[in-house]
Amino acid sequence: MNWIIKENDFNKERIIANSNKYMIGNGYMGYRGTLEEFDKTQLTATTLAGVYDRFQDKWREPVNAPNGLATNIYCDGVELSTLSATVIHHTQQLDYFHGVHERSTTFQFAEDHTVTLITRRFCSASRLHLLVNKIELRSNKAAEFVIRTGIDGDVWDINGPHLEQLNASVTENILQLDALTHELKHTISVAEAINVTFCEQKSVPHEYGVYREIKLNTEANESYSFHKYVAVFTSLDGVHNCSVAAYAESKEALVTGYEALLEEHKQVWREKWNVSDVKINGDKEAQEALRYSMYQLHIIAPGHSERLSIPARGLSGQVYKGAVFWDTEMFMLPFFLYTQPKIARNLMMYRVHTLDGARKKAAEYGYEGAFFAWESQETGDDACTLFNVNDVFTGRPMRTYFRDKQVHISADVAHGIWQYYTFTGDHSILTDGGAEVIWECARFFYSYAYYNSRKKRYEILDVTGPDEYHERVGNNAFTNNMVKRTVNIALEAMETLKINDYPQYEKLIAGSETTLAQLYHMNNNLYVPSPYEESLLIEQFDRYFTLEDVTLPELKSRILNKNEYLGGGNGLATTTQILKQADVILMLHLFKDQYDHATKQANWTHYEPRTEHGSSLSSCIYAMVATDVGSPNWAYPYFLRTATIDLTGESKQYVGDLYIGGTHPAANGGAWMATVLGFAGVHFNGQRVQIKPSLPEQWNSIRFPLLLKGQLFQVTVDSKAVVITPQGDHSHPIAFEINEQLHNVEAGQELRVELS
Amino acid sequence: MNWIIKENDFNKERIIANSNKYMIGNGYMGYRGTLEEFDKTQLTATTLAGVYDRFQDKWREPVNAPNGLATNIYCDGVELSTLSATVIHHTQQLDYFHGVHERSTTFQFAEDHTVTLITRRFCSASRLHLLVNKIELRSNKAAEFVIRTGIDGDVWDINGPHLEQLNASVTENILQLDALTHELKHTISVAEAINVTFCEQKSVPHEYGVYREIKLNTEANESYSFHKYVAVFTSLDGVHNCSVAAYAESKEALVTGYEALLEEHKQVWREKWNVSDVKINGDKEAQEALRYSMYQLHIIAPGHSERLSIPARGLSGQVYKGAVFWDTEMFMLPFFLYTQPKIARNLMMYRVHTLDGARKKAAEYGYEGAFFAWESQETGDDACTLFNVNDVFTGRPMRTYFRDKQVHISADVAHGIWQYYTFTGDHSILTDGGAEVIWECARFFYSYAYYNSRKKRYEILDVTGPDEYHERVGNNAFTNNMVKRTVNIALEAMETLKINDYPQYEKLIAGSETTLAQLYHMNNNLYVPSPYEESLLIEQFDRYFTLEDVTLPELKSRILNKNEYLGGGNGLATTTQILKQADVILMLHLFKDQYDHATKQANWTHYEPRTEHGSSLSSCIYAMVATDVGSPNWAYPYFLRTATIDLTGESKQYVGDLYIGGTHPAANGGAWMATVLGFAGVHFNGQRVQIKPSLPEQWNSIRFPLLLKGQLFQVTVDSKAVVITPQGDHSHPIAFEINEQLHNVEAGQELRVELS
Repeated sequence: MNWIIKENDFNKERIIANSNKYMIGNGYMGYRGTLEEFDKTQLTATTLAGVYDRFQDKWREPVNAPNGLATNIYCDGVELSTLSATVIHHTQQLDYFHGVHERSTTFQFAEDHTVTLITRRFCSASRLHLLVNKIELRSNKAAEFVIRTGIDGDVWDINGPHLEQLNASVTENILQLDALTHELKHTISVAEAINVTFCEQKSVPHEYGVYREIKLNTEANESYSFHKYVAVFTSLDGVHNCSVAAYAESKEALVTGYEALLEEHKQVWREKWNVSDVKINGDKEAQEALRYSMYQLHIIAPGHSERLSIPARGLSGQVYKGAVFWDTEMFMLPFFLYTQPKIARNLMMYRVHTLDGARKKAAEYGYEGAFFAWESQETGDDACTLFNVNDVFTGRPMRTYFRDKQVHISADVAHGIWQYYTFTGDHSILTDGGAEVIWECARFFYSYAYYNSRKKRYEILDVTGPDEYHERVGNNAFTNNMVKRTVNIALEAMETLKINDYPQYEKLIAGSETTLAQLYHMNNNLYVPSPYEESLLIEQFDRYFTLEDVTLPELKSRILNKNEYLGGGNGLATTTQILKQADVILMLHLFKDQYDHATKQANWTHYEPRTEHGSSLSSCIYAMVATDVGSPNWAYPYFLRTATIDLTGESKQYVGDLYIGGTHPAANGGAWMATVLGFAGVHFNGQRVQIKPSLPEQWNSIRFPLLLKGQLFQVTVDSKAVVITPQGDHSHPIAFEINEQLHNVEAGQELRVELS
Repeated sequence: MNWIIKENDFNKERIIANSNKYMIGNGYMGYRGTLEEFDKTQLTATTLAGVYDRFQDKWREPVNAPNGLATNIYCDGVELSTLSATVIHHTQQLDYFHGVHERSTTFQFAEDHTVTLITRRFCSASRLHLLVNKIELRSNKAAEFVIRTGIDGDVWDINGPHLEQLNASVTENILQLDALTHELKHTISVAEAINVTFCEQKSVPHEYGVYREIKLNTEANESYSFHKYVAVFTSLDGVHNCSVAAYAESKEALVTGYEALLEEHKQVWREKWNVSDVKINGDKEAQEALRYSMYQLHIIAPGHSERLSIPARGLSGQVYKGAVFWDTEMFMLPFFLYTQPKIARNLMMYRVHTLDGARKKAAEYGYEGAFFAWESQETGDDACTLFNVNDVFTGRPMRTYFRDKQVHISADVAHGIWQYYTFTGDHSILTDGGAEVIWECARFFYSYAYYNSRKKRYEILDVTGPDEYHERVGNNAFTNNMVKRTVNIALEAMETLKINDYPQYEKLIAGSETTLAQLYHMNNNLYVPSPYEESLLIEQFDRYFTLEDVTLPELKSRILNKNEYLGGGNGLATTTQILKQADVILMLHLFKDQYDHATKQANWTHYEPRTEHGSSLSSCIYAMVATDVGSPNWAYPYFLRTATIDLTGESKQYVGDLYIGGTHPAANGGAWMATVLGFAGVHFNGQRVQIKPSLPEQWNSIRFPLLLKGQLFQVTVDSKAVVITPQGDHSHPIAFEINEQLHNVEAGQELRVELS
């Protein structure tokens, strides 16, 4: 395995797909995998985590910083550009072990004149404000180069422009561009230092940026290189003056130098892989796709801030408003919980910090407690609009109910926090606001629920479950189960809080119309659809089985416009049993201890052919439940589909006329889940780790680390045995359940259990 | 007033509109106002009340009987047809005092040769199976006529063919055509007798009918006439053999003769008007439109059977599947209650006889009790489909929720029965099944309602109110109020039943899971949205006021296709505050005693500009509430729109690509309501009659009869006084409330109360 993905030619058609595929990032910012000569036309972007802006009445979305890597190079007056010049050799590659992007292009100018441009860039994992680019040139003949490099403030915006009052300056050969965001007047500062010493240069102020022009006369077949050190700061970073901070950061980087910076960057990456790498023996394609998926998670994980979570398209641009969805809790959190719990804590604390937005949303709809945003930005106010898709037949905005009715988001959040607490035993998450979030979510559901006097049960009506093709349904099995879990968690969390922070406990109780007694009553009497006796099927929601039971090919044959939305008021799927994504099956995964093998198998078999997988969140769930019922070969294609989504770029790009491209962190998390929780069959409940492997036939073994309650284990699973190697201190022994028997792992002692 | 409407020329464009306008009928059958030479192409139809048929998987709809009035006349080989010959003079007219249709057409054949055809027809009001037609011919030159007349079995069907196994026969010069319906094999028999004696004739069997051919040589300027006596029977009529019955009926009519039949027919009509005619002094247009509207009600009222009600398009064809909607209870019943309570009883008994269908529907959706059909045919099974309209943009069927969610229908039925009981004091309606219907409706609502534990109230969720542009809403004010009334009525009805039929009472209680105590609890705790404190506005349903508040012209400017449906999943009105028809305003009319003047005025003013009146059920309600708040001039245009709907033929003819033309009995009833209950301000609550006039400025007076608890009154209202003249016996005095004071009317004594 060389941990490298690579393009061997240049194809204009793949510019956008490759910009996602070859992304770099560090959780503070993402830098799309564009080439140096590109600009906003090719969707070049330095997307900032947690910085949002709204221009006029357009959609609120993340801010792209000015592009400090903007570089145009001319040789004898002709630009070295893949877009216009003759390219005779081109590679673009990503070392995803170290997060280093490299391109190498040879241009032909005259029959006997070729010029090669090689660049290497990384988004420093050790210095989060820093982007570094090394640029190297070689001509086979003596030539005159003009290099125009600097900071481009004319950035790609979907709903912009977001940057205003651009201010360029040059101090001691460091270029700087400051700008203000439109809505909230945040300052965005970019500084660029360069180590060019070999020739003359001058700075070139420009309406939308600041550049320097370097004249360079080269000799034949000699290499010339220089480095750019670009620092990005915003006024949200807690520094006194972000312009000064950017200046200082770029200058310090210049002093430190490229090689030292690269080394410290690589060191951080080695540590990331040390706690997370999963080795698949026997399947190179799966191995590469899985590691690449984990790479995508690493570059967007907010290791540095508990005010950030991970947007649905990571830091790959402004798609989906840079908003945080349930994707985080349901599809990404497990990876971090099992490998980097500190990041998991940040993700969950983001929900604590956005609780007020969720309270406002609940109040807006007339409920108590906290109704978390379907599309959450920095304040927790819901960025989701009421009209999310345009009808392709009329061009009119279509009313959708993502914002209003996907109430399970509050349950997902409560579940996520409780998972973190269960996995880590870290009480502080509860006293730091986690218990309050859970309590507020439970209160929300109490106010949302209705009591059916005839059937003597609470019901959850008028919701949209994970299958968004069926909006506004009653008693969605997934949602009801999640609501019940939330109420249950809330009762437990309050007990815990009572012990750990009694004043806070008292305050929460006093401030609530809803009583503990009411929640106990709801907990005991909430309806959760159970499997039908004969068929074992669980009905996705009330009367789902009365809908037209059409096959997926038949449904697809009714499509009149390839971009038409299958859900919504008149959607083709709406009146049928075709679902967008795992719904009952997701429930069977989340509540795997509650359902028996036969039920899981019956429902998988029933729902699988009816699932369109119109969401990238679907396949990994089908993979996991398939492994759970001992059918890894059913699971394998779903795993592969999930794991390769950002490698192939073949995901859905449009819904209606809305562009939804970018990277897919939920699927990336899903690839890890399918492997470790699915094929390896790991399931930690806070007390013991169950391991129930079910490997695809071509896999010889899987090896992966688990970091549980502060203790690191290396686990190897093959068809014969499970081997557990504890690493470091193990003061708090954790039991492993293998073959339905418990095994304790002692410090320094490898445990090997043969599979029966 | 001549009680005649008339066309003075022939216009092909108006054939269909005139066929509705010039209809005749007698409650057993309707005969469209087509001309004798027309056939199914011009939508000629003898529509039978209460006989339904389904062909294959098409919509179930009423059966059109073979056309016994089919006549084609040829003069010297050229047909006397408005469709092909030269017409130099044409009138078509209807004497709506007597229900007699007449046409007179002069054809020109050569420059100096004209032939006049005059026909008169009536659908006997005294012999319900009988259609009579008189045909008269005159040529200004001697000519040879061939008259082909008989029974045409090739009938107009929307979703047919419904008639099968046609069997023609001729017995003693009486033609007969028998047929079976497709689905249920009902026999339909038509017999035709004719009084032609003046010339040779021969019968002509035909694949789809039976005819006779009459050769007639006429002298110049002589009139020649003959009569057709057509009898229609079906196997649902309770006769031993309907073919024999039809034969006998036509033969008897032949013996009785045209003039005598016409006279007895007219006598029945005089009696109808005697108990119903409303005289408007000062407004000829209003007078004509109102009387004509009442005519339309008279010709479709099922005076002879308690197994029939009135379909939404009367007996004008097969539109809306010949189904009975809430239109009957809400828009037609009052006319009959105040004038012909025996017919009102039939209408309500129809609901008793269709209770089992309503029970089945409730069970189908998982509820208890009776959920009446949105579109009810003879069994009470719901003829309403789940896909009622085609999307004009994609041609696809559009899921609508008329059938599933317009639960108010059960409340409307209960309300209707209780109204009948209240108006007449006739306990038998309750013991004959009315109490059971009401009880079942209340049980249905108990099972449909949900209890909001936080707000401590029952709510009615996920319904469609009268405003069908907003489907699946919560707590529709109209619906909740109607449900509350139903529960309240049920409690009262059970008390009454307990006294009048204790065994039945006991049986109903014993057979019900729902208890009286539960209904009392619901009655006391059911949420009914009340007016907001400041604005006095009543919100149509939960969160209605958060919808886009667009003007009607602005909404209409967004229409892309004139037939597009404004409701449904993606309808233009769905996401706005534009409503299809009176909803809150209908509630203010029905519950007029519960709301004060200021509330009514505020809501009228608010909702009026937001109402599209996309239903013919809307205008009359706006008229009535306008009169209720003392604004008759606001009311007047709405009254006129309602009253002229079948005269102008300018109502909506298409929804999506669905033809919805025909007559509008609900609007006809609405015209009467707007006049008597609106402008005259009559309101009977079973105890006393309130009269609170509010006349349009051009009206001098209104005079009308009221038949209340078996006692007939003539009431005259003008701007100065109300005069009440009791007629006949008045053993049970009824109090009149005028000027907020009660007055008793004594037998034989006129009461005159000056208006203050």
